[in-house]
Amino acid sequence: MKIALAQLNYHTGNFAANTQKIIETINSVINKADLVVFSELAICGYPPRDFLEFEDFLLECESSLEQIASVCKGISAIVGAPSRNNAPKGKNLYNSAYLLVNGKVEKVVSKTLLPTYDIFDENRYFEPNTQFECIEIAGKKVALTICEDLWNVDDSPLYVINPMDELVKHHPDLMINIAASPYSNVQQAQRSNILRANCHRYNLPLVYVNHVGAQTELIFDGDSQYINAHGETCTRLTSFKEQVEIIDTENSNSVEDKPLHDELANVHKALVLGIRDYFNKLGLKKAILGLSGGIDSAVVVALAAEALGAENVLAVLMPSQYTANESVVEAINLAKNLGCQHKIISIQELQQAFLQTLNPLFEGKPEDVTEENLQARTRGVLLMGLSNKHGFILLNTTNKSEMAVGYGTLYGDLCGGLSVIGDVYKTDVFRLARYINRDREIIPEFIITRPPSAELKADQQDTDSLPPYHILDPLLKGYVEDRKGPKELIAEGFDEALVKRILRMVNMNEWKRHQTAPILRVSKKAFGMGRRMPIVAKYLG
Amino acid sequence: MKIALAQLNYHTGNFAANTQKIIETINSVINKADLVVFSELAICGYPPRDFLEFEDFLLECESSLEQIASVCKGISAIVGAPSRNNAPKGKNLYNSAYLLVNGKVEKVVSKTLLPTYDIFDENRYFEPNTQFECIEIAGKKVALTICEDLWNVDDSPLYVINPMDELVKHHPDLMINIAASPYSNVQQAQRSNILRANCHRYNLPLVYVNHVGAQTELIFDGDSQYINAHGETCTRLTSFKEQVEIIDTENSNSVEDKPLHDELANVHKALVLGIRDYFNKLGLKKAILGLSGGIDSAVVVALAAEALGAENVLAVLMPSQYTANESVVEAINLAKNLGCQHKIISIQELQQAFLQTLNPLFEGKPEDVTEENLQARTRGVLLMGLSNKHGFILLNTTNKSEMAVGYGTLYGDLCGGLSVIGDVYKTDVFRLARYINRDREIIPEFIITRPPSAELKADQQDTDSLPPYHILDPLLKGYVEDRKGPKELIAEGFDEALVKRILRMVNMNEWKRHQTAPILRVSKKAFGMGRRMPIVAKYLG
Repeated sequence: MKIALAQLNYHTGNFAANTQKIIETINSVINKADLVVFSELAICGYPPRDFLEFEDFLLECESSLEQIASVCKGISAIVGAPSRNNAPKGKNLYNSAYLLVNGKVEKVVSKTLLPTYDIFDENRYFEPNTQFECIEIAGKKVALTICEDLWNVDDSPLYVINPMDELVKHHPDLMINIAASPYSNVQQAQRSNILRANCHRYNLPLVYVNHVGAQTELIFDGDSQYINAHGETCTRLTSFKEQVEIIDTENSNSVEDKPLHDELANVHKALVLGIRDYFNKLGLKKAILGLSGGIDSAVVVALAAEALGAENVLAVLMPSQYTANESVVEAINLAKNLGCQHKIISIQELQQAFLQTLNPLFEGKPEDVTEENLQARTRGVLLMGLSNKHGFILLNTTNKSEMAVGYGTLYGDLCGGLSVIGDVYKTDVFRLARYINRDREIIPEFIITRPPSAELKADQQDTDSLPPYHILDPLLKGYVEDRKGPKELIAEGFDEALVKRILRMVNMNEWKRHQTAPILRVSKKAFGMGRRMPIVAKYLG
Repeated sequence: MKIALAQLNYHTGNFAANTQKIIETINSVINKADLVVFSELAICGYPPRDFLEFEDFLLECESSLEQIASVCKGISAIVGAPSRNNAPKGKNLYNSAYLLVNGKVEKVVSKTLLPTYDIFDENRYFEPNTQFECIEIAGKKVALTICEDLWNVDDSPLYVINPMDELVKHHPDLMINIAASPYSNVQQAQRSNILRANCHRYNLPLVYVNHVGAQTELIFDGDSQYINAHGETCTRLTSFKEQVEIIDTENSNSVEDKPLHDELANVHKALVLGIRDYFNKLGLKKAILGLSGGIDSAVVVALAAEALGAENVLAVLMPSQYTANESVVEAINLAKNLGCQHKIISIQELQQAFLQTLNPLFEGKPEDVTEENLQARTRGVLLMGLSNKHGFILLNTTNKSEMAVGYGTLYGDLCGGLSVIGDVYKTDVFRLARYINRDREIIPEFIITRPPSAELKADQQDTDSLPPYHILDPLLKGYVEDRKGPKELIAEGFDEALVKRILRMVNMNEWKRHQTAPILRVSKKAFGMGRRMPIVAKYLG
């Protein structure tokens, strides 16, 4: 059987665009393939979130499905969309895969394992499937499953049943899995292991079709593939790109598995795609950001220029009395290296004006972080003014280490419509900078090698109040990503006082993160929709 | 049997405080009651959210439980806490009720129906219970359930099983339900109906113990009660207050059911409690807010003064050239009526300074909303400066109608640590103002009767760009709370063009709401954790 794997970029709720894209893809492979496979909830985009609670949204799904079915003549298609649960009890929807044949829906297969952890909320909307049968396509018996259905094969299973254990009893010839599996820096390796483990366990080949493209914070890498019954990859689609590829199940020779890209290169690709789709899907073109002469904004402007084109990125330098002369010089060099337009606005007078107004109300209290925050907020107001006037989106440049300990000024440098590197630790920001410079010096060496500083007061360095990042970042990763508590971290060798201080800082800044922009997710645990913490809680606070 | 209903206010993750409170309550009813009942997840507070993923947090729960069990001598207790799922498959926790007798845990009963909708995420953490047996307490057979377990009795059940249908087979004498059921303006009536329906259906009396107090956005009203087998209320605890009350199951005479308070009075109580607990649980005392002379900030300052004491509220007037003289005069009168301190800061010079700086970069583009936003953001910077310097929390004063259509300036009037009336439509803000004035004029009549205006340009009124609120608010309620789509709303008689314009505005402002403060929840669907929408989606956008 010839099967087209359609790894496409959908736009959530954009039924016209998604339907057109699916229909064009079907037409492009008619007479070349017996079957074309689209990903999970392709018709409405993933994740549709609470739009699933609107009857009108479901009717749009059904209308799109009908249009798509009508072109399936001479070819079959599998496409993901919600379906109705008509039973009197239980949630009213299933997360389903539709088999379309001869212009109509021939079969509906629904998802059994509904991920409800991290960024996933599927139990919120869907009833789990409890019936298992294979479907017939072009004379082959196919075990059709949806994403998580294949993921219950490791040592500590989250679920009490395993759909493939049921389906295999009906002796299928082939597994097909349609997915919405977002990228993270550990996901591709884990995903490959899981998919191969299924092939080994059931001694069956597998066609796997995933989403590609970003939906706000979630970035889908694609990584669709055809794996033979020995767990060897025969075809693997290009990551982070739309691609339609036809495989032949009669030819299941393993090809040399393209090595997984260097993870740093993947993070870079993910962030570029994340920026691009955020703008594309909002129908906007141009970005603005503050360029400080520090490494965070340097990396973000380089990513933005790659994603949107340098001509669509405006860099704004806003020096104060504390800004080193080299910061301005090198920020200008960076903008020039990229070919971005830049503007310089001194904030000194505005800062003075604010202080003059506020000082009488400060009641003689000594200078503290308030005055530093005022500088950051003055910059925020200027950037948002330009953003509003010109219709640009402000990019936020805060990194994950700062986001974790709360070292950003709310309504100041935490402003922005999208946080580009809020899931990248500071030590990884340095690695990304080196990666960006891999072919030529884009980010001036000075910016990479200078000691990190917010330049909000004289002679300030990040290490004045934080441990060095090579100590801080592993500690943060242990707490935020690996869910380790204080005792476990201390047992690993971190200083006890430091552990208590840092964990307290992370917990006490939940209120600040609650108000920041969506963060492009590239780790297994990003701040945002996948990490849900109370604000007024006292634990470790 | 004599049962103490302990309706208490817990602090999430504050194990020391919660454990002390529970132990003191047990000690206070020893020799007076056979059993004391605490609410769902009382030991750790509700909702603990992702803290449940930390082993250290679970160990803290277990240590607290041990301390509490040790004082249960001569009395039994039921208390909610997570328990471990030791089975090899499934999620690793249950949401459990512990029966404590003779200094130790005698039984653990777990929750079957795990709410995963609106603000609830229980499937994220817990495995559902599948075993049903009654427990023996003081010679009585008790059907012990947890919150949602009783809620599957209406016409379109969300779940395929009903725990009481199983438990009733064992012939219990009494139902006990421990809950974490947050307040909304429709919840008390619905809750009473559900509880009574259970008594009727199983012909059993019911002891119901709920949380009281606010956890960030969620406000628990308590409303704990004892209902006899005829569905008649025998005892009902005071809403929105901590209370411990002993009931006697031998005396199940119905008392005259205290009428439910006027819903407006309840919303008022809920908001006051919400503010008070936000400050108390963060360990802070003082609030600051901008007072414009409009009705929104007037209602918020009155609520804050009631919650925190007028001496702990600083009102800041920040007039511009567009501010009517009466706005200043009446805002001052309001502050005086309440006894709050007030400060006046003119923003005109700062505003001019920003415009002078930015005008060269505005490239001759005409005045638009940018200049209005600049005023709002200048005020935001001033308020945050005072907030930082004095350690006050800034209260946000945006109402639900504005929040819905995006009529607030991000980083301007949308600043603040807590949104007090972000779940109150403008028409209800007027009703609240009248309620606040029920005994004497606190909010000057002028503020209530003037036409709503943001005063960000000359002669501006809200109705210049929005329909009147008596039309807008029901439309917003239909879309946001009742999940009605465009066709349903148009069929109800709303103007088609208006429906399309307003729904588009709601959807297109998701990115703004993503960055606002937590909103005290008083309706069945508030913006925030209970409403999860994509940002870059196109649906109705």
